[in-house]
Amino acid sequence: MTVAVINAKSRDLLEGRLPEGVEPLWYENDEHLLKLAPQAEIAWLDPVTPVLAAQFIAAAGKLVWYTALSSGVDWLPLQLIAERDVQLTNGSGIHAQSVAEYAVMGMLTVAKGWRQVVRAQDRHAWLAQPPGKRELLGSKVLVVGAGEIGGRIAEILRVFGADVTGVRRRPGPDDLGSEEWRGELGRFDWVIAIVPSTPETQRMFGEAEFAAMKPGAVFLNFARGSVIQQDALLAAIDSGHLGGAFLDVTEPEPLPAEHPLWSRENIHVSMHLAGRAQDTLFERGSARFLANLKHFMSGEPLEHRVDLSQGY
Amino acid sequence: MTVAVINAKSRDLLEGRLPEGVEPLWYENDEHLLKLAPQAEIAWLDPVTPVLAAQFIAAAGKLVWYTALSSGVDWLPLQLIAERDVQLTNGSGIHAQSVAEYAVMGMLTVAKGWRQVVRAQDRHAWLAQPPGKRELLGSKVLVVGAGEIGGRIAEILRVFGADVTGVRRRPGPDDLGSEEWRGELGRFDWVIAIVPSTPETQRMFGEAEFAAMKPGAVFLNFARGSVIQQDALLAAIDSGHLGGAFLDVTEPEPLPAEHPLWSRENIHVSMHLAGRAQDTLFERGSARFLANLKHFMSGEPLEHRVDLSQGY
Repeated sequence: MTVAVINAKSRDLLEGRLPEGVEPLWYENDEHLLKLAPQAEIAWLDPVTPVLAAQFIAAAGKLVWYTALSSGVDWLPLQLIAERDVQLTNGSGIHAQSVAEYAVMGMLTVAKGWRQVVRAQDRHAWLAQPPGKRELLGSKVLVVGAGEIGGRIAEILRVFGADVTGVRRRPGPDDLGSEEWRGELGRFDWVIAIVPSTPETQRMFGEAEFAAMKPGAVFLNFARGSVIQQDALLAAIDSGHLGGAFLDVTEPEPLPAEHPLWSRENIHVSMHLAGRAQDTLFERGSARFLANLKHFMSGEPLEHRVDLSQGY
Repeated sequence: MTVAVINAKSRDLLEGRLPEGVEPLWYENDEHLLKLAPQAEIAWLDPVTPVLAAQFIAAAGKLVWYTALSSGVDWLPLQLIAERDVQLTNGSGIHAQSVAEYAVMGMLTVAKGWRQVVRAQDRHAWLAQPPGKRELLGSKVLVVGAGEIGGRIAEILRVFGADVTGVRRRPGPDDLGSEEWRGELGRFDWVIAIVPSTPETQRMFGEAEFAAMKPGAVFLNFARGSVIQQDALLAAIDSGHLGGAFLDVTEPEPLPAEHPLWSRENIHVSMHLAGRAQDTLFERGSARFLANLKHFMSGEPLEHRVDLSQGY
């Protein structure tokens, strides 16, 4: 039997559907998990904190496959996982729809000044004029990191009539390459960051990149807070150069109450909710885990495997 | 020369582009407009109030064509226009993109509980859990009144992965007919009203229709406040049967400060801003007016003519 340690919260979704030969151990709490760790060959712990996951992996000497629900895996002890030769799979794609819906919502609410309409309703005030008059139709959008999530965002925006360009390592016909996009930044009304968090993407948006953007452009971040220099973004907002920012991710998270990002009229903070604003995350995650378990038990290669040398 | 009375606000967009034979009279204010009225053969007065438009039409004995920027023309003196045999053209379609963007924004903000995120940011509070977890993907949407605007909404929602059904007088393969839709109401997660305001559509959504909707369904109105029975909607919200309402239009407009529609947690009031949340309304309107002026001067039929027996 192959021992799989799984969060008891997923028991209803998985029990009776596991392939033959898998012995599930359902963990109930932190202490229980660390007690089970030495037996684990396979692990799906979500929801789990970064600290607990690291303690578990350190104690799980027999572990051969760890799977995570998140797309980004920068919160896991990647070096230890690589040293132990543990296979790592992620939730890449599971969040594509949810994040894409959130990104389009973010653009539309900024375009229409929706936050001001919400506040007006709260004080029972009828606005005579729209606080925002932008349209997505005809606007130029740069999606930096056109993977599964970025691709879904682009697909939806194109139906709105937006002119969408992606940035990819291996650019297709509608894309710019990693060396090209900086020179083109001035063309875009919207710039969306949805790159994986890796050593190469840290602070990739700084003073120079924000300065190169079109005056009035709006910057959206659905990647990680660490891909931008937050002080440079704040300066570009406060100088009036950028028209706004929509930040699903920040540094740190949660953002402390006194942080300046909260209080700018044209900065929108969405509290890392985008990927979780769906009620089917664990269903989709369970279906993917079951499919991969079958591959594992048949000796086939796992899907959605993280390349530990790239970090995604 | 054919005399056209036009709002001076549109002068920059039109001057030098009018076809030969048209003599424009640019009106500057209400008094000026009423003084010019007896000479007017053609009129494009927007922006104009219903009262002033009615006074003008009553005084414009030579008027043969009146054009309006709005899609709905229920605010104009239709009987007088019909008696005088004045041709009436409207802005049907000009607002399709703007209203469609607003409608999709409305659905997404309701789906994700975005209003609660806005309020949390205002108090610098980081939400640990998403206040809304609905997705448009896989949801069932009924678009009642699938004209140009409804069609654009449907087209965008389908790319999100929503399952969209229209209601039309002459139903296509994805549509329900006017006699069929009431019996199917219980199937839909979202019901969007975008019918023209005519005698037949007055109060078409009342107690029976709201009761027939799926528990938790969300109702959106981008038509006119008069197509629903507001008291019945409030009752369906207050009983917990409906999950929410997003109302671009209300009765009356503006809504008085003490009106109950303002203060329900799951009613969103967008103050008839949807069609105007664009910066190209007058550009699009001018282009359409110029095209129709050429038709008029060449003796060709006008486009976007309102059928006065139908009211749209």
